[in-house]
Amino acid sequence: MIIDCHGHYTTSPRQHEGWRGEQIEAHKAGKPPPPRPRITDDEIRESIANGQLKVQRERGTDLTIFSPRAAGMGHHLGDATTSEAWASACNELIHRVCSLFPQNFIGVAMLPQSARVSPKNCIPEIDRCVNEYGFVGINLNPDPSGGHWQDPPLGDRYWYPVYAKMVEYDIPAMIHVSASCNPTHHTTGAHYLNGDTAGFNQLMTSSVFKDFPSIRFIIPHGGGAVPYHWGRYRGLAQDAKLGLLSDVVLKNIFFDTCVYHLPGQELLAKVIPVDNILFASEMIGAVRGIDPETGHHYDDTKRYIDQLPLSAADKAKIFEGNARRVYGRLSATIEKQSAR
Amino acid sequence: MIIDCHGHYTTSPRQHEGWRGEQIEAHKAGKPPPPRPRITDDEIRESIANGQLKVQRERGTDLTIFSPRAAGMGHHLGDATTSEAWASACNELIHRVCSLFPQNFIGVAMLPQSARVSPKNCIPEIDRCVNEYGFVGINLNPDPSGGHWQDPPLGDRYWYPVYAKMVEYDIPAMIHVSASCNPTHHTTGAHYLNGDTAGFNQLMTSSVFKDFPSIRFIIPHGGGAVPYHWGRYRGLAQDAKLGLLSDVVLKNIFFDTCVYHLPGQELLAKVIPVDNILFASEMIGAVRGIDPETGHHYDDTKRYIDQLPLSAADKAKIFEGNARRVYGRLSATIEKQSAR
Repeated sequence: MIIDCHGHYTTSPRQHEGWRGEQIEAHKAGKPPPPRPRITDDEIRESIANGQLKVQRERGTDLTIFSPRAAGMGHHLGDATTSEAWASACNELIHRVCSLFPQNFIGVAMLPQSARVSPKNCIPEIDRCVNEYGFVGINLNPDPSGGHWQDPPLGDRYWYPVYAKMVEYDIPAMIHVSASCNPTHHTTGAHYLNGDTAGFNQLMTSSVFKDFPSIRFIIPHGGGAVPYHWGRYRGLAQDAKLGLLSDVVLKNIFFDTCVYHLPGQELLAKVIPVDNILFASEMIGAVRGIDPETGHHYDDTKRYIDQLPLSAADKAKIFEGNARRVYGRLSATIEKQSAR
Repeated sequence: MIIDCHGHYTTSPRQHEGWRGEQIEAHKAGKPPPPRPRITDDEIRESIANGQLKVQRERGTDLTIFSPRAAGMGHHLGDATTSEAWASACNELIHRVCSLFPQNFIGVAMLPQSARVSPKNCIPEIDRCVNEYGFVGINLNPDPSGGHWQDPPLGDRYWYPVYAKMVEYDIPAMIHVSASCNPTHHTTGAHYLNGDTAGFNQLMTSSVFKDFPSIRFIIPHGGGAVPYHWGRYRGLAQDAKLGLLSDVVLKNIFFDTCVYHLPGQELLAKVIPVDNILFASEMIGAVRGIDPETGHHYDDTKRYIDQLPLSAADKAKIFEGNARRVYGRLSATIEKQSAR
């Protein structure tokens, strides 16, 4: 079984993101938002059948751990109230996708974060997504200000209410920023990767893993700059007397494989232990073209892993086993959704 | 000849950085700064002989392209006046090092930047450093706010006065941030690498290379996240209809080798054309320990390059030839300083 742990609903029916625009406009004008648009099951079916499901089949993957569009989270827009309504609408739509295609999609929640608003306010949405929707993880945005980095680092107790819930429910968080509203940081060309790198460093230098020994985080996009600079991080951890980097982070931090060329994947698999790598493509996502050097989509990451000099057992860990371990509720959810 | 293109004077006599502290305290108190401290030639000799020169000799390198301590630039502290006085003091000290050790050090200027102050005010210091001190390049901080990213991106015409000077003098700029005052970004564990990645992306998506076809930038720390995500950047350039990434950036952008483990160096040399890689270590710098996996310093980057499967001619480009090409005034300066 091939599990892609990083997919976003980038192909949602147009009226969904349309409503978001209206909601933010209404907020700016000090008015209540318009009623939420009607989205039919057929519209959802079509958006998936011609989108992520089609690509799953073309590439030979089986299941996508699926969450709302990351750039669309827009935690820097509106306020806590608009974020709550938007997260609720987005997660409900993911739940409908997972209900319509239970063999192919399992949900991960977007949180109703807002810059400088305590993440405590995310707890009800986590409760709902886990208990009512059967979601198996969350996306945690370390920078709800959208490129201005105005909230405390992930090691701060500010974030602990979310961490306590993650441990309680046995769900991991993917550290994933949203769109950048800072012109110095292109969303997919700089802010995403920099969010990964900063998030890793914040956790590495924190007490989070001492305070929550069983907590698990996925750093997406191949870990940002981290595996390429693994020697630098080993050295920084050593200079800071944190101990061996592998001891410090590898029980709790995992990296996905959203790296869009073979040499990058080779580095990832060489540097990071195979137990800490989870297959992912983020299709249909940031990079949609076909690589003229290979004739295949840049984000068809399965092809790169197929070419790595790893044993079948190790590849099975990357493709399936590690996801089942890191997402503690995944195996039970697969069983439940498969039975439908 | 082995030229290390990335060294900072991290071992300067104590009273130098001591004065900086006093200067900033005086500025906060609305008072004039105290007079600059006396630093003798012997003190400078000692700081270098027991510091960077000692390490050059131990590692078998010949010449360091040398600039003031990057984290010490502190462009977020004080104002334009304090930055001018501090840049002037720092560059003068580099000039004294280069005068005392003309065979081993050639200078690169720190600029008197300040957040939200036009970089036009850097021109007199560039003039002085090139014309009076014989410096061969500059360090350009893309984020003088120290982790808050409040200035325009590097593609903005805001930066063009500096670019025009670079072209006029045939000097490249290393894109190098200073210390972070944003608690989400550890200076050497996140801000440096993220500055590299953001800076690259800003230039890639800009018209700078159309407007200044001969301009040259060095992205330090192995290019931040960029070479590891070279496929992503190729795809982003393609999706944005910018053309082939190699055509877009490789006439103007170069990467140094400050990557502190062999697998990272292997990736860099595999992905980036050898003509675009410049040897560098940033010793004595961010990572000072000995790697228990190799028994050698993490930042002894020459050892990694010695192990790469490249021809002697290609290694000579990385160690010497590319630096002479990218730093247009370097060869003449080497000749001049060697004659002393």
